[in-house]
Amino acid sequence: MKRALGVCYYPEHWPREMWEADAAEMAAAGLTWVRIGEFAWSRIETAPDVFDWGWLDDAVDVLKGAGLKVIMGTPTATPPRWMLTKHPDMLAYDAEGRPRGFGSRRHYCFSHDGYREEGRRIAELFAERYGDKVNAWQTDNEYECHDTAISYSPAAKVAFQEWCAQRYQSPDALNRAWGNVFWSMDYADFDDIDLPNLTVTDPNPAHVLAFRRFSSDQVVRFNRVQCDAIRRHSEAPIIHNFMGRITAFDHYDVSADLDVTSWDSYPLGFLMDRNDAPEDFKTAFARQGDPDFQAFHHDLYRTCGAVREDAAIKDGRWWVMEQQPGPVNWAPWNPAPLPGMVRLWAWEAFAHGAEAVLYFRWRQAPFAQEQQHAGLKRPDNAPAPGMDEAKAVAREIEALPEVGTARSDVALIFDYDSAYAWEAQPQGRDFDYFHLAYETYRALRAAGLSIDILPADRQEYSGYKMIFAPGLLSLDDARLKALSGSGAMVIMGPRAGLKTDELSINVPLGPSLPGVDAAVTHTESLPPSHPMPLADGGAIWKWFEHLEGGAEVLEATAAGLPAMVGSGPFSYLAGWLEPDALARLVAKYAAAAGLETLVLPEGLRVRDTDTHRFWFNYAPVALEFEGRVFEPGAVLWEAL
Amino acid sequence: MKRALGVCYYPEHWPREMWEADAAEMAAAGLTWVRIGEFAWSRIETAPDVFDWGWLDDAVDVLKGAGLKVIMGTPTATPPRWMLTKHPDMLAYDAEGRPRGFGSRRHYCFSHDGYREEGRRIAELFAERYGDKVNAWQTDNEYECHDTAISYSPAAKVAFQEWCAQRYQSPDALNRAWGNVFWSMDYADFDDIDLPNLTVTDPNPAHVLAFRRFSSDQVVRFNRVQCDAIRRHSEAPIIHNFMGRITAFDHYDVSADLDVTSWDSYPLGFLMDRNDAPEDFKTAFARQGDPDFQAFHHDLYRTCGAVREDAAIKDGRWWVMEQQPGPVNWAPWNPAPLPGMVRLWAWEAFAHGAEAVLYFRWRQAPFAQEQQHAGLKRPDNAPAPGMDEAKAVAREIEALPEVGTARSDVALIFDYDSAYAWEAQPQGRDFDYFHLAYETYRALRAAGLSIDILPADRQEYSGYKMIFAPGLLSLDDARLKALSGSGAMVIMGPRAGLKTDELSINVPLGPSLPGVDAAVTHTESLPPSHPMPLADGGAIWKWFEHLEGGAEVLEATAAGLPAMVGSGPFSYLAGWLEPDALARLVAKYAAAAGLETLVLPEGLRVRDTDTHRFWFNYAPVALEFEGRVFEPGAVLWEAL
Amino acid sequence: MKRALGVCYYPEHWPREMWEADAAEMAAAGLTWVRIGEFAWSRIETAPDVFDWGWLDDAVDVLKGAGLKVIMGTPTATPPRWMLTKHPDMLAYDAEGRPRGFGSRRHYCFSHDGYREEGRRIAELFAERYGDKVNAWQTDNEYECHDTAISYSPAAKVAFQEWCAQRYQSPDALNRAWGNVFWSMDYADFDDIDLPNLTVTDPNPAHVLAFRRFSSDQVVRFNRVQCDAIRRHSEAPIIHNFMGRITAFDHYDVSADLDVTSWDSYPLGFLMDRNDAPEDFKTAFARQGDPDFQAFHHDLYRTCGAVREDAAIKDGRWWVMEQQPGPVNWAPWNPAPLPGMVRLWAWEAFAHGAEAVLYFRWRQAPFAQEQQHAGLKRPDNAPAPGMDEAKAVAREIEALPEVGTARSDVALIFDYDSAYAWEAQPQGRDFDYFHLAYETYRALRAAGLSIDILPADRQEYSGYKMIFAPGLLSLDDARLKALSGSGAMVIMGPRAGLKTDELSINVPLGPSLPGVDAAVTHTESLPPSHPMPLADGGAIWKWFEHLEGGAEVLEATAAGLPAMVGSGPFSYLAGWLEPDALARLVAKYAAAAGLETLVLPEGLRVRDTDTHRFWFNYAPVALEFEGRVFEPGAVLWEAL
Repeated sequence: MKRALGVCYYPEHWPREMWEADAAEMAAAGLTWVRIGEFAWSRIETAPDVFDWGWLDDAVDVLKGAGLKVIMGTPTATPPRWMLTKHPDMLAYDAEGRPRGFGSRRHYCFSHDGYREEGRRIAELFAERYGDKVNAWQTDNEYECHDTAISYSPAAKVAFQEWCAQRYQSPDALNRAWGNVFWSMDYADFDDIDLPNLTVTDPNPAHVLAFRRFSSDQVVRFNRVQCDAIRRHSEAPIIHNFMGRITAFDHYDVSADLDVTSWDSYPLGFLMDRNDAPEDFKTAFARQGDPDFQAFHHDLYRTCGAVREDAAIKDGRWWVMEQQPGPVNWAPWNPAPLPGMVRLWAWEAFAHGAEAVLYFRWRQAPFAQEQQHAGLKRPDNAPAPGMDEAKAVAREIEALPEVGTARSDVALIFDYDSAYAWEAQPQGRDFDYFHLAYETYRALRAAGLSIDILPADRQEYSGYKMIFAPGLLSLDDARLKALSGSGAMVIMGPRAGLKTDELSINVPLGPSLPGVDAAVTHTESLPPSHPMPLADGGAIWKWFEHLEGGAEVLEATAAGLPAMVGSGPFSYLAGWLEPDALARLVAKYAAAAGLETLVLPEGLRVRDTDTHRFWFNYAPVALEFEGRVFEPGAVLWEAL
Repeated sequence: MKRALGVCYYPEHWPREMWEADAAEMAAAGLTWVRIGEFAWSRIETAPDVFDWGWLDDAVDVLKGAGLKVIMGTPTATPPRWMLTKHPDMLAYDAEGRPRGFGSRRHYCFSHDGYREEGRRIAELFAERYGDKVNAWQTDNEYECHDTAISYSPAAKVAFQEWCAQRYQSPDALNRAWGNVFWSMDYADFDDIDLPNLTVTDPNPAHVLAFRRFSSDQVVRFNRVQCDAIRRHSEAPIIHNFMGRITAFDHYDVSADLDVTSWDSYPLGFLMDRNDAPEDFKTAFARQGDPDFQAFHHDLYRTCGAVREDAAIKDGRWWVMEQQPGPVNWAPWNPAPLPGMVRLWAWEAFAHGAEAVLYFRWRQAPFAQEQQHAGLKRPDNAPAPGMDEAKAVAREIEALPEVGTARSDVALIFDYDSAYAWEAQPQGRDFDYFHLAYETYRALRAAGLSIDILPADRQEYSGYKMIFAPGLLSLDDARLKALSGSGAMVIMGPRAGLKTDELSINVPLGPSLPGVDAAVTHTESLPPSHPMPLADGGAIWKWFEHLEGGAEVLEATAAGLPAMVGSGPFSYLAGWLEPDALARLVAKYAAAAGLETLVLPEGLRVRDTDTHRFWFNYAPVALEFEGRVFEPGAVLWEAL
Repeated sequence: MKRALGVCYYPEHWPREMWEADAAEMAAAGLTWVRIGEFAWSRIETAPDVFDWGWLDDAVDVLKGAGLKVIMGTPTATPPRWMLTKHPDMLAYDAEGRPRGFGSRRHYCFSHDGYREEGRRIAELFAERYGDKVNAWQTDNEYECHDTAISYSPAAKVAFQEWCAQRYQSPDALNRAWGNVFWSMDYADFDDIDLPNLTVTDPNPAHVLAFRRFSSDQVVRFNRVQCDAIRRHSEAPIIHNFMGRITAFDHYDVSADLDVTSWDSYPLGFLMDRNDAPEDFKTAFARQGDPDFQAFHHDLYRTCGAVREDAAIKDGRWWVMEQQPGPVNWAPWNPAPLPGMVRLWAWEAFAHGAEAVLYFRWRQAPFAQEQQHAGLKRPDNAPAPGMDEAKAVAREIEALPEVGTARSDVALIFDYDSAYAWEAQPQGRDFDYFHLAYETYRALRAAGLSIDILPADRQEYSGYKMIFAPGLLSLDDARLKALSGSGAMVIMGPRAGLKTDELSINVPLGPSLPGVDAAVTHTESLPPSHPMPLADGGAIWKWFEHLEGGAEVLEATAAGLPAMVGSGPFSYLAGWLEPDALARLVAKYAAAAGLETLVLPEGLRVRDTDTHRFWFNYAPVALEFEGRVFEPGAVLWEAL
């Protein structure tokens, strides 16, 4: 498959007389895809049921006339001001109980029936008009961006009560499931259930977990309504552009309604905006981005792209819908990328299997919220620094032989339900599920491995040699069977399989792995000052579990407590490993699994496809590795 | 008196078929008390006026049948969901003006007449039913826990207006008392008085002080209503379980309605949760707790237990109603206690005079908010690590000769009114009344002294050799007479006796101590960078007062300013001493008072009873002192 | 002109029998001005339309009888409680959407028509009664103190909609001006416009800028209504007392309605309260204040005092209306001033041209919010430490020959519109307009230069040799002509002239300086870890702009990028210079402009008048400079 480049474009921001030249210049630069429409509702439907389609018809014609393929976005992320007059109760509410007002974007509650119907209506109108003209669809834009997936509105409350009624069927069943006897929290009627915000102290974590599942389901439904409307009139593939580091809804579930997944990749903005990255790490990578963050999401969304048809993960269809082309406007600091990174990021996406990478945006808008966000072109229509790198990528795509996406030998299970659970019940300030999974990913990748990221509910996991499942909320027989049947070494834990699906402690005590006589008797969240050294090097920090049982001890603390036990395909890790210990463990188990590993210097990363090994240097300095020198921003590929 | 152990138990959380075995195992472990009932309202009164007493009758019978003594808690800390339907305006409001909703516990406003009456009703029903069966009562649970004593609800506003009318009798009198002329803040009518939240800048501190006194009175009234209802039907003693480090209401006042006081002692949770402890201190004691924090509260609640009958403090009746048995769930980090600490904590309570120590809880609940909170038993019914230590304590109680509680030679005055005042008017980021009093306590205890904590309004203080009164809001002739008649050296200050009872500056300038010609002319809050060294060693930090007058200078700053003056029984300390200076001062004045002191290493502490000296090692390492070695967690006693 | 001292006095706080003695003592101390009335509304109008003028008549007579000149303040900063009953919707709302309640002061919304009319009414009543008796007027007190200039109330919303209608005339024009097409933010009607708070993500910065301009205009109107009312009945000059470091409204605009400006100078409180000063700097100056902060405001308000008549800046009429006399009550820490500072601060104000300095307050009030705020007298009527220093200044005024105010050779443009713009769109956590301007001021002053601070819209800037204009939002031909015609070297940037007046990026790209071929192609906000060293020493930090064009490069980064370009009168600085680089640049360009500079040690500062050079030592230690020794707190003057 030939990879493709593209760009996001907002014809409504620019004079009509610029459009032809823009389209011609896009094509000349080697771009083949152009995304339009996503924020233009107020210019298409200028008042309720008053339409001005002409300019958009025109824009589609101009772009297609230049040979470009068009992705049309439904504009539901930006309801016009008249929508709020029509549906005054459509706004999402924040956890403080305040409506989140008009004046930016994403000001709607996913649970509002009226607005969801408006979304269906406009999507259907788009699809009727452009169903046979455009080459792909995008639904809405960046669900959950600006923390918008979870709403505490009156509409959400009613919908949650109904969701609870559907799930639990009787208040008594709900009371039992949540353990509401604990503090006299029993409900006699579903109508009595409040949302779990503004309680005196922590709400019941089972209540929070249910609300998080509900909130995810509302996103799924909102998206599905648009997909269904579009499919009634169009055969073009439907895509949504997800954001990075989001655990507010289940991306696998939303993806089940899509044909292709995509995400919006802003390596510098994401790094500057993160609180979980050490300062010296942020310093080293401020102009390049975290060397593993993009790859993690590439691998995650490749899987999402394979969810619908239950295809092999390696064939997952996915894009980068928005690629940072220069400084952005929204992070605490917004430096410019190091020269070469705009090219590197695109190639890294291709190496992980992306079909297309679209730069965001064509030309920097001189007005409104994102006026300091770079484009491929400057506001004065001169080329911005990113343009040359984009053109270089386009030329290289032409030159490169086709490369597939390799089946990975190593898998990491990433599960949204678990994220909800541990966000509801961290039991320690440092316990963050995303971080736990991401550090595992980083350690695997630092060892030169290519990774698949998998959901927790696949029917089979065959073909992998090593599977990691840290922090997995619950295990049942079906999951255990699927995992044990995979042929892989399965490394569970910490905090895996210890709870029921409703976030109670399993009795008998988990993890109850077949053939592994081990139970977690009690747990500790460790202050930063109290790591627990391991006998064989490195340490456990943040989280430790006390184990009992006769299982073989694979790792022990310096004080002699079991830290990892196992037998057969399953082993269980009873703590959060700091990076040195994790690197040691990955090397040890990869060797046992017959996998070759590298010890890559910080910043240097590899990814294998069916045919090639790609090398990427994210470091701010040249790196030498195995006799080769990698300049900053270097992208190298070699046939395997 | 033989000391006793017990446990908190929630039969409603467990299948009926487990109760007999539980009761038998409690008794076999040496536990004699069991507390039940406190959170069970929704299972007793399942709908308004619909009762299910059967299971509770049964539980009482089972427990008593096993020879256990039962403490019955009134369930008013957890009003059921139907209560909110019945009294929609019963919720407390936070300082941001938001109602604090259903879904956890303590979701009521102490000022709500309807809910207070519900409390009376359920307490009376409990007392009628179990008045002659149970061995003690507990009212509600942990007043103020989760910051619930202070409410800004509409109900609180009306009640506060009435409280002001009762106290001041006329708006003019209130305006004069508060100095409302200052910024045209005069009220013409009591109905015009708002609560002191959400003002543009600081409200009048006299307004805040009045509101804090009112809030305390509301807690007293809420508790008294239940005590009165219980006493109509039962002669069993009434207890409330206070929490640690709480200054939101006057514990002496609430205790005046109780027969026995108690508190809930969570050494690790409290330390991890505190912002005023240095990080290296938290690190050293993360698995043991602050070596002085439990003792401070033991001594405080012993006094509270003696308030009602105005008994000698040493005879104060008090318990530890909840004792941490392992990791808890609610602190920023929740490590496990060092082996031995679960035993040490109990013995320390006994050494300070506790009649009983109850572990919380019998068995770890697998569901809801506290599922990660350890019990003596695990969720799977196996014994948890704390069980063996509890059993050891039970055996030791049997073996130990009876020990009384010593009359202390040293007293510290701890006054809730002063806490309200300085919280309303800190005049510097670091001025915290609790911290000031607690640091004085720590210095006395580090010198090996046993201490009584006293209220500020006792009619006599005789029998002490040394009394410290830091930060005492106001002094009047009666107080001065009681203190000067005690025979003790009385060390006042800093910030003692400078204000009127309504939080205005005294004119003539205070402290106006008899025989001490000294007045505080002006004060300074000192940034951390500006300590003031003392001529004889150590320094003043955080707070300094400029003195004038002819009183003898007992301590001076290196720059020659008087820092402590005095004559006869009274001396006055004009600043906040950092620990080294405070240790020097304690040693100097203890020697002058004829008291023998020690220089204990950090972590090692002693407490004398009538017959024994107890030694406790809180340090994470073995300590050598005067030729003896104390292992971590060591408890030693020797006859005096 | 002889300078004058004065004091702020609240007769309503003290018994009538103290007034004569107070007045006599003021006069004897050398004070000539006394300010009264400002917070006394509740005692003058005790209920709506019920007046008690007698005591105020009496106070005026007593004070004037002692030979004092009286400034009468309108009491509108403290509306009485009955006002809120009369106008329940008069309160300002904070950005969280909550009304800001009664109980302190400044609890009104500037946009509330009813309250503005109440202000007119009471000002007119004051003026009718005292118009020919008092010697000056003060309107209200400290506009914006406690963040009160910006209100999100319903009244503000309606007024903002009307303001938008007046400014933009049609919704379409507003939509175009703000770029509302960007996210479908178009308005069809002015009534649809919300205030820019509580939006989902950032509101449109153009929206925020408009709201900030509106908010400033509301302050101007509120003040003007009172000025107009007073002038109908009095010829005494009208003053307002501004606060320090305030950018919430345009002080030039408010000043245009005043005869004299003034500000309230609290050197210690302001330093302790600032987050932008390094900790070691705060430590060094905790008892003296920031050596440049007072001077900056003196120079700013001297200009404001010259705005109305468009007089020469050097003749601007201005006062210090409130001068810190000892510890205050409102900062995080409140230490006492170093001996000598109460004198130094007054002399520094005079050296910068102040006509009068009034200490705040006469006697420390023993009650209410500011009871810990020092006065010249203690609450017990003895003199406080500041009194002697005030008397010393009074004697020195008598002895000193008259000194004028020098015309400065150097100017700094300080523009409120620019502050609004960059607060709306910082584009990086460290970009703060006030800080940028203030650091430039500090560098100039550390070089021994005397500075004028100028607004951005003067018709001519002649007579200066060097003008700095950092961060100036927009430039138009008139501004450029005025600057280029001044004869001065004009150093623009960073971030100057890059935007339109509506906060869009200029196309062609700015700054478009005449004769300077340079355009900013893109910008970067730099994390603290990423300064950019300059080839000639020092570095750029926080902010960097990429330049293109053929202009001569005057400074370059070590990596070879242009950092400063220029030609003719204009040069452009493309980054935020850290202090070393800024000091080097100031020295270099001052030399080029023929200005003599010094390299003053930290804490030592000079200010020239027409006749004298004044030296001030703010350092906590003695400093030696050019053979002279300056003790801490030293004030020296020498004839030029």
